[in-house]
Amino acid sequence: MKKIVLAYSGGLDTSYCIKYLTKEKGYEVHALTVDTGGFDEEEIAEMEARALKLGAASYKRVNVTEAYYQECIRFLVYGNCLRYQTYPMSVSAERMFQAMSVARYCVEIDADGVAHGSTGAGNDQVRFDLAFELSGRELEIITPIRDMQLSRQEEVDYLAEHNLVWPEKKGTYSINAGLWGTSVGGAETLTSNKSLPEDAWPVPVTETEARDIDLNFEAGEFVGFDGKKFASKVEAIKALEAVAAPFGVGRDIHVGDTIIGIKGRVGFAAAAAVLIIKSHHLLEKHTLAKWQLFWKEQLSNWYGMMLHEGQFLDPVMRDVEAFLESSQGTVNGTVHVTLHPHRYQLNGITSPNDLLGAGFGAYGEMNKGWSGEDVRGFTKILSVPGRIRNAVNK
Amino acid sequence: MKKIVLAYSGGLDTSYCIKYLTKEKGYEVHALTVDTGGFDEEEIAEMEARALKLGAASYKRVNVTEAYYQECIRFLVYGNCLRYQTYPMSVSAERMFQAMSVARYCVEIDADGVAHGSTGAGNDQVRFDLAFELSGRELEIITPIRDMQLSRQEEVDYLAEHNLVWPEKKGTYSINAGLWGTSVGGAETLTSNKSLPEDAWPVPVTETEARDIDLNFEAGEFVGFDGKKFASKVEAIKALEAVAAPFGVGRDIHVGDTIIGIKGRVGFAAAAAVLIIKSHHLLEKHTLAKWQLFWKEQLSNWYGMMLHEGQFLDPVMRDVEAFLESSQGTVNGTVHVTLHPHRYQLNGITSPNDLLGAGFGAYGEMNKGWSGEDVRGFTKILSVPGRIRNAVNK
Amino acid sequence: MKKIVLAYSGGLDTSYCIKYLTKEKGYEVHALTVDTGGFDEEEIAEMEARALKLGAASYKRVNVTEAYYQECIRFLVYGNCLRYQTYPMSVSAERMFQAMSVARYCVEIDADGVAHGSTGAGNDQVRFDLAFELSGRELEIITPIRDMQLSRQEEVDYLAEHNLVWPEKKGTYSINAGLWGTSVGGAETLTSNKSLPEDAWPVPVTETEARDIDLNFEAGEFVGFDGKKFASKVEAIKALEAVAAPFGVGRDIHVGDTIIGIKGRVGFAAAAAVLIIKSHHLLEKHTLAKWQLFWKEQLSNWYGMMLHEGQFLDPVMRDVEAFLESSQGTVNGTVHVTLHPHRYQLNGITSPNDLLGAGFGAYGEMNKGWSGEDVRGFTKILSVPGRIRNAVNK
Amino acid sequence: MKKIVLAYSGGLDTSYCIKYLTKEKGYEVHALTVDTGGFDEEEIAEMEARALKLGAASYKRVNVTEAYYQECIRFLVYGNCLRYQTYPMSVSAERMFQAMSVARYCVEIDADGVAHGSTGAGNDQVRFDLAFELSGRELEIITPIRDMQLSRQEEVDYLAEHNLVWPEKKGTYSINAGLWGTSVGGAETLTSNKSLPEDAWPVPVTETEARDIDLNFEAGEFVGFDGKKFASKVEAIKALEAVAAPFGVGRDIHVGDTIIGIKGRVGFAAAAAVLIIKSHHLLEKHTLAKWQLFWKEQLSNWYGMMLHEGQFLDPVMRDVEAFLESSQGTVNGTVHVTLHPHRYQLNGITSPNDLLGAGFGAYGEMNKGWSGEDVRGFTKILSVPGRIRNAVNK
Repeated sequence: MKKIVLAYSGGLDTSYCIKYLTKEKGYEVHALTVDTGGFDEEEIAEMEARALKLGAASYKRVNVTEAYYQECIRFLVYGNCLRYQTYPMSVSAERMFQAMSVARYCVEIDADGVAHGSTGAGNDQVRFDLAFELSGRELEIITPIRDMQLSRQEEVDYLAEHNLVWPEKKGTYSINAGLWGTSVGGAETLTSNKSLPEDAWPVPVTETEARDIDLNFEAGEFVGFDGKKFASKVEAIKALEAVAAPFGVGRDIHVGDTIIGIKGRVGFAAAAAVLIIKSHHLLEKHTLAKWQLFWKEQLSNWYGMMLHEGQFLDPVMRDVEAFLESSQGTVNGTVHVTLHPHRYQLNGITSPNDLLGAGFGAYGEMNKGWSGEDVRGFTKILSVPGRIRNAVNK
Repeated sequence: MKKIVLAYSGGLDTSYCIKYLTKEKGYEVHALTVDTGGFDEEEIAEMEARALKLGAASYKRVNVTEAYYQECIRFLVYGNCLRYQTYPMSVSAERMFQAMSVARYCVEIDADGVAHGSTGAGNDQVRFDLAFELSGRELEIITPIRDMQLSRQEEVDYLAEHNLVWPEKKGTYSINAGLWGTSVGGAETLTSNKSLPEDAWPVPVTETEARDIDLNFEAGEFVGFDGKKFASKVEAIKALEAVAAPFGVGRDIHVGDTIIGIKGRVGFAAAAAVLIIKSHHLLEKHTLAKWQLFWKEQLSNWYGMMLHEGQFLDPVMRDVEAFLESSQGTVNGTVHVTLHPHRYQLNGITSPNDLLGAGFGAYGEMNKGWSGEDVRGFTKILSVPGRIRNAVNK
Repeated sequence: MKKIVLAYSGGLDTSYCIKYLTKEKGYEVHALTVDTGGFDEEEIAEMEARALKLGAASYKRVNVTEAYYQECIRFLVYGNCLRYQTYPMSVSAERMFQAMSVARYCVEIDADGVAHGSTGAGNDQVRFDLAFELSGRELEIITPIRDMQLSRQEEVDYLAEHNLVWPEKKGTYSINAGLWGTSVGGAETLTSNKSLPEDAWPVPVTETEARDIDLNFEAGEFVGFDGKKFASKVEAIKALEAVAAPFGVGRDIHVGDTIIGIKGRVGFAAAAAVLIIKSHHLLEKHTLAKWQLFWKEQLSNWYGMMLHEGQFLDPVMRDVEAFLESSQGTVNGTVHVTLHPHRYQLNGITSPNDLLGAGFGAYGEMNKGWSGEDVRGFTKILSVPGRIRNAVNK
Repeated sequence: MKKIVLAYSGGLDTSYCIKYLTKEKGYEVHALTVDTGGFDEEEIAEMEARALKLGAASYKRVNVTEAYYQECIRFLVYGNCLRYQTYPMSVSAERMFQAMSVARYCVEIDADGVAHGSTGAGNDQVRFDLAFELSGRELEIITPIRDMQLSRQEEVDYLAEHNLVWPEKKGTYSINAGLWGTSVGGAETLTSNKSLPEDAWPVPVTETEARDIDLNFEAGEFVGFDGKKFASKVEAIKALEAVAAPFGVGRDIHVGDTIIGIKGRVGFAAAAAVLIIKSHHLLEKHTLAKWQLFWKEQLSNWYGMMLHEGQFLDPVMRDVEAFLESSQGTVNGTVHVTLHPHRYQLNGITSPNDLLGAGFGAYGEMNKGWSGEDVRGFTKILSVPGRIRNAVNK
């Protein structure tokens, strides 16, 4: 009997896969849930029970949140990565890490194949396929939903025939939660012109008063807020999310190019991710050199794109990470933010490495580090190429 | 008697210059005000009266707003140019156009020299100096404020001695208004950690209810809103500003690198500029190819930086403009926005060139343009380099 | 009977295709040879005779060399495009233009399908497939060599069975000639460590004495040499090739990444292409601004890569072309070259737009456009950010 | 008496400075020669004697060649840095390191000022000034040649008056030798159209027969040739230079933009530098991923430009170095080269990390890692955006 690993999220598609692959295909299905910060223990217990009931030979959950932070999220912060200046790539990053974990598990248990529940129209199928191809093990890749182009109803009916009543959908939206944000797809996001209604968002806006909050950074990493200490950076992010999400900040709709070339649109609520990235960027404007900011922007743009497209394993990614890490030594300090319902404001920063002011000269005031004559000479020299061009070409 | 042109903004510094340069230096001072959309007729009349009273040999105002739009603002929109992802470069662009106009006027009236009222600590001195050096005419550049490091009070006192009582400052802020936004500097912007108080902003937030507004674009240019026609694109921008400014959107503090290498901080209120750029960018995400978006971002970043730094006359700028213009043919349609007090939301777009949806396949749904097998082959090929690396390097 | 167009090069693979597709598959095969400057009339006549003898329903040759120059080669010159600083992309560019011509012909004659003779291991299959997919017509893509993984011997045997004796191979190398160079593959190029022997190259080195030659450029285009006028730029290129090839210049081995992810190695002899590009680049160093040279290099690198990978139809390519074209107005003049056996030397240039010297100041000598004090001020200002960093961070 | 350090190269300009600054200005002049691999012991002894005779209070030589290699040359190799695809920046890099050493010496001996002998027309003055400004110590910068715009003859006459007969110039050229190459300026290089005559070059071409040579690389560094071991990488470079220079390879004329905005032209002979860079680049084409090659090219271009312009101390340089270093782990192996009089040929490489061939599939042959169907699917997906554009936009 062929032994396969299933990347199991607990949703309808992968639940269907367990039953279908055991019953119709005769596979020995080992369900693996890779937790990147989006599940609570109750959900995991339910998922395990369902997996076994549907016929899985085993169920396992691995929590890779720490590694996910260390190897990926950290660099998204260093790079201020927002895809098309908007999307923190909440799902992109997470799915890649899940796929890589599944691939490692296949090697670990000597699997013959590996299955995922992605459809044929999105990015996830490519992320999974790519990670599996690069597992270092020859694996058959099994994708029933993509291959049979099943509709949701067909899956529900099939499970019902096999004594599993899939709960009525709670809403019209497909929701995907993880450490770096929650995505919301369906209905309006399938159009080009409609925004998501208030009740589509996972966390309602319950805060009504402004609140000041200080985000603390050390060497480019978000380490906590309001001076509080956290057991880990992952915990700090989760705590910030808990505080900020009820303000409804960090919500938007991402419009982007999928790996397979169609345009896609997806809502996201990522309060912590957006606040951390925007605060970090502001802190960098005070603490980095101009050309660092310039090249960070060019490279991070690329880094985000590659990650989004499942190319996390390309060696150029390690090189960009080395660049980004090298740049962060002086990115220390506190960013002062005010949260309002539906918006936030970056008020300013305090940093031991703040290059602004610095008792050396101040913007708009006269200074001690140079004279008017120096600037005159500076501009004279800056004008040399133009004066030569004027002389030669006209 | 030496004939000089003074770039005259009507403020304290340039008013001082008229008196000082005529009385103490014996120059024949021709005051020129270059209007880029920031003055009304009453202000101009006052400025003229004051200039002549202070001893100017002549006063002239030129309105270059149309050229400014055509030769510069247009490209800032094509490029979604926000310096460090924040600042629409309201002043940067304008000052450069003013400087270039002054330079042309010097040639026109055969001036021997040219004066400006910039201090020695900001960007403007370089923009002016550079444009004057490249006028094609040998011009003495005269900069009393920079050279003598005068304080505001010294200037007021000097004018008072010469029978011109400078009005009590209305506030603590230095305000600079133009077509593409208003800058606000002083007090808090001289710190790193404080935001501007509500009353520092030029237009108070008077709107209290949400308002839907549709921004219309043709070939990448903002042509109006809610389907209304305007006499020119400049008029459309002004009308949008009038509608949007009372919502308090498009306000922020820019932290950036000045041309002379210090960090600076300046507030800006640029409702129209920010709404147009963000709407334009969204429309592009629906209508441009992935690699167009990628390269536009890299080049526009550069373009904005060069403009900011007074390098508008570098020939590479014309080449980038050619790139940007080439990319805009399909950027047509309407962007649906909701204005709220202190924030706005981009709801979506409607475009004849929308590449999303397109009846060809939809994000998250199955499609007609390819099969699951195609994606499988696609990913197989994408994985080839990684599989080779795995084989060779381990 | 299904009507198909075959991209017919006259070689073994496509000759096999004609017989196979007519006899075994029952297609009505219309053979099309797209000439991009690599065929002479005698060859064409032979190819036609063979095509018809093998069963083609029709034979046609189209000469697209002029369009190929105008729409592609021209930009490769503007961009100084050498893939990985070496390869003028002799075949890459040509194959794409051939594929696009074949696609247009399919539309023109209402074909049901289209065939090419590429194997499954190279770049050409992707270039053909991509152009055909984007023809605007639904076309079946037929690729017998790729699908059946035929060896050369199997093809020869099959043709022999059908009364066509394929001539003994003249050599071990697969040769591909076009306007922009000739590629040479086989034997040594399949290794990593061997160079091609002298007799592998299409044109032997027969020149033994040095020869001076002046290459003439107008607005970035090579228009002729030694002041001679040519009927067209295509003719000028061909004439230069005739002069320079017997010197053995412009030969090398390209090592690169194929579109499908493997590394490949191919020899090329491209005397005219290499001389034109290197001369053009030198002329640009004298006539363009620093930042033009910088961005041209970044963009051209990209442009070459995209072309190489069959992505000529991506809209970003038109935008890059607009950039490149915009930059060429001052690239006028003559480049003085000496050809030696196996090498050439760029001696210098003469140009009305030469920015060097210019009676304004000379490198290494004192100048009229600025003073030592100006440079002192310039450097003072340049050092400002570093001095601030020193003060703040230590 | 003011204590100053003089960056002393032993040439006419700096010899003049010693006498002038001690006698006319009354400074206590400490002459420092910073050796970056361009002096032999005899020269140093002569320089020391002359310095003391001219009145220097002390003379010191520091050899920084190892640091120069470790902190700079190494990265120029990793980056394949050739300014404008030609110039290995022989002088640019060296001068910067000399300037930084001089700055450190000023701090060490508590100098009040620092002098250099640069003219006002080249790059060196900026490199020196910048390094001195960033020494961390307030230093007066003293530049007699630049300030007084002295001609060579005036300097010779002045020294003669003070009993030092400057030797007749050996030739018309100004020669500058260092580890990474020798620059040759004067006569023809002051024109745009003339090349340097044979006798202008520092090492005549004495080799007449071809010679095979194998260059060995470890993790991107050149460690020796023909399997020989060297005491250090610096020694390996010097040994290669000794072998290759008599072939006359690595000679060319660089045309470039100076820091002060004029164009300049300078000859260089840099056999070892050019062979190492070109060999290293070839090895990388076999061992790095496509996107590594792409980004290395963009970043190295920048890195070379910044170094050339004296901006070695900008923090972005450290970040680029981190990127480059990260990329070199697999750049191991041997590059097979043939030296001929006046030219060289790269024959191929042998590497344990060679990604070409690899028993996985070969360029031009059928393969084991994918099928024709996979490529068909790949291209189908690649064509998706184009097919959508075709459908939407026409």
